[in-house]
Amino acid sequence: MIDINPDRLLTHLRALANFGADDHGVNRVAFTEADVRARRWVSERFEEAGLRASIDGVGNVYGRNRTSDRAILLGSHTDSVPNGGWLDGALGVIYGLEIAFALRDRPVERSVGIDVIDFQDEEGTVSPCLGSRSFCGELSDASAIAMVPSQSKINRTSGAPLIHHYERGRHLAYLEAHIEQGPKLEAAECTVGIVRGITGIRRFYAQAFGQADHAGTTPMDMRRDAARALFDLVDHVYREFPRIGGRDTVWNIGNFSIRPGAANVVPQHAEMLIECRDLDEAVLENLERSLHARVQTHNASEAVKIEIERTVRISTVPMSQGIVALFEGAAHRLGQKSLPLASGAGHDAMIVAKVMPAGMMFIPSIGGRSHSNAEDSKEADIISGCRVFASAVDRLMSESG
Amino acid sequence: MIDINPDRLLTHLRALANFGADDHGVNRVAFTEADVRARRWVSERFEEAGLRASIDGVGNVYGRNRTSDRAILLGSHTDSVPNGGWLDGALGVIYGLEIAFALRDRPVERSVGIDVIDFQDEEGTVSPCLGSRSFCGELSDASAIAMVPSQSKINRTSGAPLIHHYERGRHLAYLEAHIEQGPKLEAAECTVGIVRGITGIRRFYAQAFGQADHAGTTPMDMRRDAARALFDLVDHVYREFPRIGGRDTVWNIGNFSIRPGAANVVPQHAEMLIECRDLDEAVLENLERSLHARVQTHNASEAVKIEIERTVRISTVPMSQGIVALFEGAAHRLGQKSLPLASGAGHDAMIVAKVMPAGMMFIPSIGGRSHSNAEDSKEADIISGCRVFASAVDRLMSESG
Repeated sequence: MIDINPDRLLTHLRALANFGADDHGVNRVAFTEADVRARRWVSERFEEAGLRASIDGVGNVYGRNRTSDRAILLGSHTDSVPNGGWLDGALGVIYGLEIAFALRDRPVERSVGIDVIDFQDEEGTVSPCLGSRSFCGELSDASAIAMVPSQSKINRTSGAPLIHHYERGRHLAYLEAHIEQGPKLEAAECTVGIVRGITGIRRFYAQAFGQADHAGTTPMDMRRDAARALFDLVDHVYREFPRIGGRDTVWNIGNFSIRPGAANVVPQHAEMLIECRDLDEAVLENLERSLHARVQTHNASEAVKIEIERTVRISTVPMSQGIVALFEGAAHRLGQKSLPLASGAGHDAMIVAKVMPAGMMFIPSIGGRSHSNAEDSKEADIISGCRVFASAVDRLMSESG
Repeated sequence: MIDINPDRLLTHLRALANFGADDHGVNRVAFTEADVRARRWVSERFEEAGLRASIDGVGNVYGRNRTSDRAILLGSHTDSVPNGGWLDGALGVIYGLEIAFALRDRPVERSVGIDVIDFQDEEGTVSPCLGSRSFCGELSDASAIAMVPSQSKINRTSGAPLIHHYERGRHLAYLEAHIEQGPKLEAAECTVGIVRGITGIRRFYAQAFGQADHAGTTPMDMRRDAARALFDLVDHVYREFPRIGGRDTVWNIGNFSIRPGAANVVPQHAEMLIECRDLDEAVLENLERSLHARVQTHNASEAVKIEIERTVRISTVPMSQGIVALFEGAAHRLGQKSLPLASGAGHDAMIVAKVMPAGMMFIPSIGGRSHSNAEDSKEADIISGCRVFASAVDRLMSESG
């Protein structure tokens, strides 16, 4: 059993929140002074917990078990969005740190150890998941280093442009804890979310080309109203997407604008953004087909033509079923109510999942708030989440040993 | 019979179009150098046609019959929108001028003469219908003069701040010719449009207040999507307005925007502009009631609240039925096919109608284009329109004499 220390866990979380402290949250954007100082502090704590720690050329802080040849990798990221929350990825890094401390205090006789990592720039200030993509070899060392802003002090702390890489043969699995960033756990009164996978994303840009005319003198049936064409497409989205999508499908019309934009001028041009996310690629494919079919039907009968193009396509990333079962077992053992869910946001785990079995565990976000100073989680949930996470790690160590 | 001279008519129209000439149109915004020079030219032509002409302190050019005590007032405006068309209101001023020339050449023995006026700033660069509102006493002399841009040369041309006013007892009626600015005459293959009235306008600003959330992690049924609330209102407009409105009712959703406007953020705020126009105030009233009722129903059941406010209310202005009959008779006598219609755009006639019987006659706009360099009318329509207009004036003079 890995016996975590709740006081130390909370003390470390709060100490980390001092770096870039901003109201109730943090402003700890990757590569800024606050980010670099936080990473040095994390590196020192890793050493204190008995790991061999160093910060590499892109800012990844890697704490490596000194004695084991094989290890379970734990971690997340400590960078934040501008005016972000104090937990977010910091939670997963400090869970890893706390487990390292617990194992230092009460060593268990096993051939498998734990390594802890604090990835750089998950939030994508320079490039989303820059640290994990560098670590997993998705980016070459040279191109990863080239992305580091020249004024950043990251390089000076790391000395030579060392780049940490995942170690095939050593790393058995990657486990990441994170806040939910949504309201599902709270609504379901669960304390642990077990991530089945990270949803795929498709984003579309649609525009319509009409003709600007005097809206007082042009009869309705003689107009070429660009906005009306896109309003029809909006109507299609709200009518058809619930029919085509599954229970967890989400979509958003996040932008809509009209030119010239005057009350008395028939819209000449209109544009909108549509995004949809689901864990099932087949669902995303059907949503996309439905959009294209609708545009085709519209263009066949209407004078105002719509153009639609897919601007983003990110594939779904399933989590390891073994790790899903591991978290379920741990929650059950500790009497915590868990909810299987999809992560609608991207995480480092979706990068790491390409090179080793990976899994994620969420704790509830109060009011579902995220990427905001208002982000928070209950102390009790932070602590019980760490116990469940540690129990899963413990079980995996013993099964792998 | 008033025998107009088609060559002189077209020559004067083309000469006027040289002031502020811009591609195929004119850039003759009120109070600019081009506008002031054009007004001096108009004043000189009025004198040449035998009228006593002067430009007043706001820029109205008034050509007054030297011998009659009573007169029919003819006119429109020569100012344009930026990059506007060459005809627009210039047509009505030159029709008046041509009739003055025709009466100079072949005087008729009548006690009623014609006065011609070229109103200032109908387009509202400073204030819509500034000239006609000043002429009709809707603006005091002092407030009208205060609106004249200080750098304008209007005042210097007029010497003392003289202000022309309509003359009760003298002015029997106001007749204005204008281009249609819409496609109805062309579509109906008519050469003359007879304006039954100028439509009322109601304009509404609607906004919805939602909550910005992560569009990937917030389930559909837990969102407070501001855009979706307004899309529902759009749907109501397109579904209900055709049912409530008449054959000639027009409406426009000319602006729609979303904040923060990102693909992956649930819309926190959305706003839109709705405008509707009709000749029947009861129809406008019903459209407005329908909007308010829909918003009320929405707010009673939805978390996202909509606010709607009327920002513009301009009442309908019926034209004199006697003048409508006069134009109908003239078109019939000259074998021109005429169409009764509502003017969806505002005109000086809607101001003048408050102080004397007023009527308007339209000629077709090619492709319905207006307020653009692409605005044009066929030469044949310009000429036959002037003949119909002159015939109506002739009849009114003899009936009033």
